[in-house]
This record gives sequence, structure tokens and C-alpha cells, in this order.
Amino acid sequence: MHRSRMNGLLIDCKIDDIDGAARFWAEALGRPVDPAHPGSRGNYRMLETPPGELSVQIQRVEHESRIHLDIETDDIPAEVARLEKLGATVDKRMARWVVMRAPTGQRFCVVRVQRPGFPAGATTWD
Amino acid sequence: MHRSRMNGLLIDCKIDDIDGAARFWAEALGRPVDPAHPGSRGNYRMLETPPGELSVQIQRVEHESRIHLDIETDDIPAEVARLEKLGATVDKRMARWVVMRAPTGQRFCVVRVQRPGFPAGATTWD
Repeated sequence: MHRSRMNGLLIDCKIDDIDGAARFWAEALGRPVDPAHPGSRGNYRMLETPPGELSVQIQRVEHESRIHLDIETDDIPAEVARLEKLGATVDKRMARWVVMRAPTGQRFCVVRVQRPGFPAGATTWD
Repeated sequence: MHRSRMNGLLIDCKIDDIDGAARFWAEALGRPVDPAHPGSRGNYRMLETPPGELSVQIQRVEHESRIHLDIETDDIPAEVARLEKLGATVDKRMARWVVMRAPTGQRFCVVRVQRPGFPAGATTWD
């Protein structure tokens, strides 16, 4: 038995200036950059997350710009196995997360629990 | 003066079977398909949205599969003008929404108010 829920959006940006990218998305979405958040470091900037809502994080990447979503879980191997049964495939196993590809083509990540409040809104899988 | 907020995610799928695509994402995210929602019609399927959260809608498209986000507003022209000042550009004007492109490369849409609860969580722009 394990649990998972959608964690949030990652806005992958192929740009040099991560702070400029974060400023654009902060202003566009009306969610200020949260510089004190542990998710704001290196190539990442976290926007402020209203309680109970999905997070939005800006990431500097080398591949083309896109948006992907993260699923957070208390058991990454079990969640990856569940998603494989649904038709997703493993794209890359990282030290702390797994990049998967949906049968519809989009990449997404399975990550450890990130947002406060877990397991509120999570689904329990047997 | 107008208001806007992030509305939700659109999972754009280049596939034939929109119901199969919606089933995958519903199971993956733990949000059942909501067949009675007005957002479930034609090439669209809406997943159930927990109160106060962002919506997730699956869309059948002709272009490559990706994910985009929508910003909902009570004044589309004013919101588009605001986003243009931030550096976004208009990609395509549709009858009821505008496709824009962020300076970081991602496409997103500016749409009329979609989710219940507006303007909760929206930002007021002067």
C-alpha cells in the first residue's frame, strides 16, 4: 500500500537567466518568487504556493522549453511500478527521482513527497 | 482594472483515442474523468477538480504532445496586453481565447473565467 498525488508543475526553460524566467512566470501567474523556499536553488526557482494548491517551479534546462508535471509519493518504486502497469515507461532513473514517459508522449517525474499537507488529496493504492 | 489567475493544466495529446488518454491521466493522477463536466466534449475530457485546486483537462491535438497552462481572466484583452508588456507574444487569436508564447518559449492560453470560485486567489491588476 502506498500513496501519491499530483505535486505541481515544472516550467522547464531553455534560457540563460533563470531569475529573469522566474520573474516572468511570477508576474504572469500572480505568484511571487519564493526565494527562501528550499526549492529555490541552483537551476530552480519556486513560486509561492497558496495552501492546498499545486506548486509551480521554474527550472533552467538544456533541452527545449516545455512544461512537465510531478507526482509525489511515499514509495517511489511502488508508484513507478503502478504507472508502468498503466502504460507509462521509465525514461531515466535519477538518484532521487524517476523520469517517466506517458503513453500519450509527455514526460513527467515521480518524486518524494515535496508539498506540505501530504497525504491530503492523495490516493491510496493497494 | 481586471483580474486573472492560473486556471489549470491542459494535457495536449497527439493520439486517436481521447478516452484512452483521459483514462491514463485519470489513473496516473488519481483524479477520475468527469464526463458530466461541460469541459468534457469533443476533443476534450475534464478530470474531477478538488475544490480550490487547478483543473486538469485532456485534449486531443494534431501538434506534438505537450502540456500547457491556461490563465483565466475577466478581461481577455487587458490580460493579453499585460502579458505582452511582460514579454509574451500573441501566437494566435481564437474566437474565445488567445494563444500566447512566453519569453521562455512555452505556449499558454488566456481564457475566460472557467473554474468556480473566481476571483478567489486571483490577482487584481491596475
